[in-house]
Amino acid sequence: MNFSDLRFLVLAEGKFGPLSSKTANGVIRYTPGRCVAVLDSTQAGRTAQEVIGFGGALPVVGTFEAGLAHKPNALLIGIAPQGGQLPQEWRGWIRQAIEQRLEVWSGLHFFIGDDAEFGPLAKRLGVPIHDLRKPPADLPISTGRVRDVAATVVLTVGADCNIGKMTASLQLRDGLKGRGRKVAFAGTGQTGILIEGWGIGVDAVVADFVGGASERLVLDAARGNEIVLVEGQGSLIHPGYSAVTYGLIHGSLPHAFVLCTQPSRQTVDSNEWVRIPPIRDLIALHEAVIAPLRPAPVIALSLNTFDLSDAAARDAIARAADESGLPATDPVRYDPAPIVEAVDAFHRARTG
Amino acid sequence: MNFSDLRFLVLAEGKFGPLSSKTANGVIRYTPGRCVAVLDSTQAGRTAQEVIGFGGALPVVGTFEAGLAHKPNALLIGIAPQGGQLPQEWRGWIRQAIEQRLEVWSGLHFFIGDDAEFGPLAKRLGVPIHDLRKPPADLPISTGRVRDVAATVVLTVGADCNIGKMTASLQLRDGLKGRGRKVAFAGTGQTGILIEGWGIGVDAVVADFVGGASERLVLDAARGNEIVLVEGQGSLIHPGYSAVTYGLIHGSLPHAFVLCTQPSRQTVDSNEWVRIPPIRDLIALHEAVIAPLRPAPVIALSLNTFDLSDAAARDAIARAADESGLPATDPVRYDPAPIVEAVDAFHRARTG
Repeated sequence: MNFSDLRFLVLAEGKFGPLSSKTANGVIRYTPGRCVAVLDSTQAGRTAQEVIGFGGALPVVGTFEAGLAHKPNALLIGIAPQGGQLPQEWRGWIRQAIEQRLEVWSGLHFFIGDDAEFGPLAKRLGVPIHDLRKPPADLPISTGRVRDVAATVVLTVGADCNIGKMTASLQLRDGLKGRGRKVAFAGTGQTGILIEGWGIGVDAVVADFVGGASERLVLDAARGNEIVLVEGQGSLIHPGYSAVTYGLIHGSLPHAFVLCTQPSRQTVDSNEWVRIPPIRDLIALHEAVIAPLRPAPVIALSLNTFDLSDAAARDAIARAADESGLPATDPVRYDPAPIVEAVDAFHRARTG
Repeated sequence: MNFSDLRFLVLAEGKFGPLSSKTANGVIRYTPGRCVAVLDSTQAGRTAQEVIGFGGALPVVGTFEAGLAHKPNALLIGIAPQGGQLPQEWRGWIRQAIEQRLEVWSGLHFFIGDDAEFGPLAKRLGVPIHDLRKPPADLPISTGRVRDVAATVVLTVGADCNIGKMTASLQLRDGLKGRGRKVAFAGTGQTGILIEGWGIGVDAVVADFVGGASERLVLDAARGNEIVLVEGQGSLIHPGYSAVTYGLIHGSLPHAFVLCTQPSRQTVDSNEWVRIPPIRDLIALHEAVIAPLRPAPVIALSLNTFDLSDAAARDAIARAADESGLPATDPVRYDPAPIVEAVDAFHRARTG
């Protein structure tokens, strides 16, 4: 099916919310025309706007059958359980989807197309299954070839996972496009890949190849573009996902970082024992780990302030800018111009 | 077959040497009784001692048939090509091995048991194939449970890959055993697993699970032991492998590091563009990346001086100790006592 013809029924059972349904939210925000309904029986009858703060009248339905009434042609797994396995209770919906000839789009670590039931069933009925995290074959070990790329490479990094790295990259993309820049968004996770239509799920490749996957992604994205915005993954301080973050940094070898934080967040996702350090320490850590390969600065801060009042958000942004000496904004809530200009100015200085 | 009954014909074609046949060398050094011959036609007629500086009279043969004369009961893939794929020219030897009823032991990323030819052939003839890097199913995302372990956890880290991390861990193990310590060696790569008989190849797991694999390994190794020596992998400054190194640090959460270097090495393996920084910078980098999760110091230096004269080696060790203020030695060439004592003293201070 043509990417733009997709009409998703978005599975987000029990989890549709501002911070708990990342894939659903990303697709609703950036490709709104592709979603026809969200399945979450705990929120049935409401709209996306009411539940997550955007998405307009997109309806939330309570049953699979109610979802079908909105004429989807594909089922999108819109939430990602920690570890990326397939919850047992979703099997019925996936079976129904395939039987109803809905394509299945999934970013789980569990590959639906390889399932002993779903694989053969989909094959028999001619229904495509898209496992977005399935890595390409023959990935290389990274060797630094990416240093030859002429484009300016900017990677979003974060104080935590699920904090706004993909969103910051996409807001930057739109802002830089608005200035006439040829800019590529290089998706590294299931949501980014879904939105952009290509990419590599770097967290799903065998560990020795994270760097090589990141390198290939940047080499591909750089063709014909002036600026490559690489979607960040995880966090250097997240005990579960930090290997991916580190390999993405060393494989993509960005010229600069944009650091994403959430002022209200004190500890790391699912790891309350890890306190998020002050912004200056986070900046120093990122600059320290890339320095032996290629020095690269943090050039801007992207803050996620969705859970703060307007006054508290503006105050948090001013404080972050003050502490770091860097441009800062919430690029969704406010004008992204400060960080768009930071990236554009960095690009001009590097190439001019 | 019982692990101790193995009689390996070691495949190292074209690569048998002090730095180019890591798996072969590790097995020859630490389980010498298990090797009956090495296959490398470019070195045929010599002994292991002559080629790699240890291994005594272990013969190097030029053909598979000459190897069979030494009555092996298993073929060991003794070299690891970058990327871990199977060179086409080895297929004949592997086929011959299976046909001769030799078990096949391999640490490649390419799983020999899954090969369309070798898998069914081995099955039909009842020949076991051991793919050492095949990860266990159901690995968790790491969550820091390892912090509850009572044992002292010490991880070897290095300025580069293939520099002596496994060897340092094994020399430490023997030294600490000699002092009556209950100590476990936790193997994280194919050679360590081969030597110890268990472990997880952390570089072969899906990237999101490197931390979880490392965590499980330490939890298992800690049972009934006072000290866990975790075999390091790669290097924080190796562009290809650094993701694995970082995930291993954050998943195993060592209480202390032993840093491995090679005084004569100036740049990183296969990446001449990455200069190895001074020892103090390497120490600072390792301590910086673990600090947000659990502060841990570098407590000793293990130097690989095999390519230096005795005078130059002693001088390099003295300089490293002086620059860092830490105990230093080459634990293979000289008495490992200085770094054994460093680990034991750290353990006593932590628990006493």
